[in-house]
Amino acid sequence: MAAVEDTNKLSEAYPMNAGDGPNSYANNSTFQKIAVNSSQEVVREEIAEKLDIQTFLLSSCNTFRIADLGCSTGPNTFFAVDNILETVQLKYQSQGLSSHQIPKFQVFFNDQTTNDFNMLFKSLPQNRQYYAAGVPGSFYGRIFPNASIHFFHCSFSNHWLSRVPKEIGNKESPAWNKGKIYYSSSTTEVTRAYETQHALDMERFLNARAQEIVYGGLMVLIIPCRPNGTPHSHTLANITYETLGSCLIDMARKGVVDEEKLDSFNIPVYIMSPQELQVAVERTGYFSIERMEVLPNMFPNSSLSNALLSTSHVRAVHEEHIKQHFGEEIIDELFNLYHKKVEERPSKFESGKTIVSLAVLKRNTN
Amino acid sequence: MAAVEDTNKLSEAYPMNAGDGPNSYANNSTFQKIAVNSSQEVVREEIAEKLDIQTFLLSSCNTFRIADLGCSTGPNTFFAVDNILETVQLKYQSQGLSSHQIPKFQVFFNDQTTNDFNMLFKSLPQNRQYYAAGVPGSFYGRIFPNASIHFFHCSFSNHWLSRVPKEIGNKESPAWNKGKIYYSSSTTEVTRAYETQHALDMERFLNARAQEIVYGGLMVLIIPCRPNGTPHSHTLANITYETLGSCLIDMARKGVVDEEKLDSFNIPVYIMSPQELQVAVERTGYFSIERMEVLPNMFPNSSLSNALLSTSHVRAVHEEHIKQHFGEEIIDELFNLYHKKVEERPSKFESGKTIVSLAVLKRNTN
Repeated sequence: MAAVEDTNKLSEAYPMNAGDGPNSYANNSTFQKIAVNSSQEVVREEIAEKLDIQTFLLSSCNTFRIADLGCSTGPNTFFAVDNILETVQLKYQSQGLSSHQIPKFQVFFNDQTTNDFNMLFKSLPQNRQYYAAGVPGSFYGRIFPNASIHFFHCSFSNHWLSRVPKEIGNKESPAWNKGKIYYSSSTTEVTRAYETQHALDMERFLNARAQEIVYGGLMVLIIPCRPNGTPHSHTLANITYETLGSCLIDMARKGVVDEEKLDSFNIPVYIMSPQELQVAVERTGYFSIERMEVLPNMFPNSSLSNALLSTSHVRAVHEEHIKQHFGEEIIDELFNLYHKKVEERPSKFESGKTIVSLAVLKRNTN
Repeated sequence: MAAVEDTNKLSEAYPMNAGDGPNSYANNSTFQKIAVNSSQEVVREEIAEKLDIQTFLLSSCNTFRIADLGCSTGPNTFFAVDNILETVQLKYQSQGLSSHQIPKFQVFFNDQTTNDFNMLFKSLPQNRQYYAAGVPGSFYGRIFPNASIHFFHCSFSNHWLSRVPKEIGNKESPAWNKGKIYYSSSTTEVTRAYETQHALDMERFLNARAQEIVYGGLMVLIIPCRPNGTPHSHTLANITYETLGSCLIDMARKGVVDEEKLDSFNIPVYIMSPQELQVAVERTGYFSIERMEVLPNMFPNSSLSNALLSTSHVRAVHEEHIKQHFGEEIIDELFNLYHKKVEERPSKFESGKTIVSLAVLKRNTN
């Protein structure tokens, strides 16, 4: 057997803030939590209607396997998993199966190798109804054996690219993103490089999952998107990263940040539209789209323009990446500046166009 | 479904030293490494002869699942797993199966929740031939679904009790272990309390594994033992912990260590004999003993009486537990003193009677 693909090579690592301190991801993932809550009812409906439990060969061990991809450190991942598990259980019970015929559950928590799994494991719910395992590695490669997972869940993860497109940081390339940290208000070449990377990443993601999931298995994707037809420059991500970039430019002018370092720093996030997601799914051909909708009430204006919330969220998600690139010493000044800029122009943030799409995919038997 | 047993409650946590620093377990597990090396040939022979791969229903996903229990932070666990995997692969190949019929491998690395899984994941071999997962929890409880593992490996772990027997720390009990930190040269009551705890733990261990392994699956146990008929007071563990205890007593006399704290501190390790292991396996009845032998040349005298080696080994294994109980400030003084005492009486350490037993068990179909 050839070596299993080393998924660390497939993807650069941008871990969320570890631990459970004031700047940790665990304590600063409000939007992600709202999305998980908001998606629960849809997930329950889809399991009730679309999960063909009769067709699953649960094999001798009678185990139903769930994987949460890009789980980070909780607690959102635990809410999502509990909702899936309880609904699947109900479905088995509704078929009149006796309690020992109802499968046991094994849940795989996946994230990049740099994720804080120690913290995740310590915070596993004590009364959980499943055997827990952690799976380190990039979901842009294979991380599970063939046909070993019955249900995938992936929330607020697919907008992360596996890497900043190579040409973006190359001075010789027409796609060099000088003086900016994001593509959304940059040149066509830069945007195209991000689009290409995103299309490649989604293809890899869907191809890998198609091998790992059983026929008839379901996959729920929850993805921050821009509405169909909305230009990248109108998204909340654009406003956020433009603001963050302008802080770095200010600091470069003051000589606190090295200009060359600024030129080589880019945010590996791409905001797709629901249409792009649909195209990616249809192109790979392994999954049918059972449901696709926009989660309601995700971003009330008051939360978008709340400087404290916006800053703590961006910090929890990007601090580590920024630290690795620029050094720890700039962090406090950078986020203080960011905070000030959000406070000065709240209406700009309220105008950011962002939706959260929920897609339920089903592995077809082709 | 009732909640899956919370194995954290089943077992107190005594993690090995984390990370990869000079006092880390990863850099101070020489004996464990010798044992793994020394066992490789036997493991290969047993897989070749005893593993009935024809009888395994590898189900639709065609995955062979290996678990290493009490894996700590590597690299020993990776050597052990590679040896098993390559031998199983060879066996499949020798049956004339084509490469796509040969199963893929999934390896579960298990240790207590307090283990440094972050470090373990970061050090996973890049060219590994398996999908890796980490499983946090005490192996004295259930940690895997029914019949989901084909091969268990457990090295240098079964001598850890799930906890110090309760009565040992109770002033009112005849088994109160005042002024000592170990049972081996203590009263009959204390020894009996350790024996009882050990018997209970082995029963739990074997019962849990019997449910988790497939029929015909193999389990390799590598356990530091005392030779049959050897009193506990003649073991290397006794000499080691007596010496460590005498250091703590010296420090209590100087007022550096609180006497009450000393009285309530005990090492949760029990050195069984091969005979006791055999009795435990036969009593639970789920496994047949396919092979049982003593690993040769495990403890050359020169290594037993090497003060530096002995100290770093004891420190890597027990520092965290001692820290939790006595506080960090005593650690350096304690191990300096220990080092001095080993240097002063090397012959005492050379006389320690310790063997390492290797047992290969097979899950019977009863």
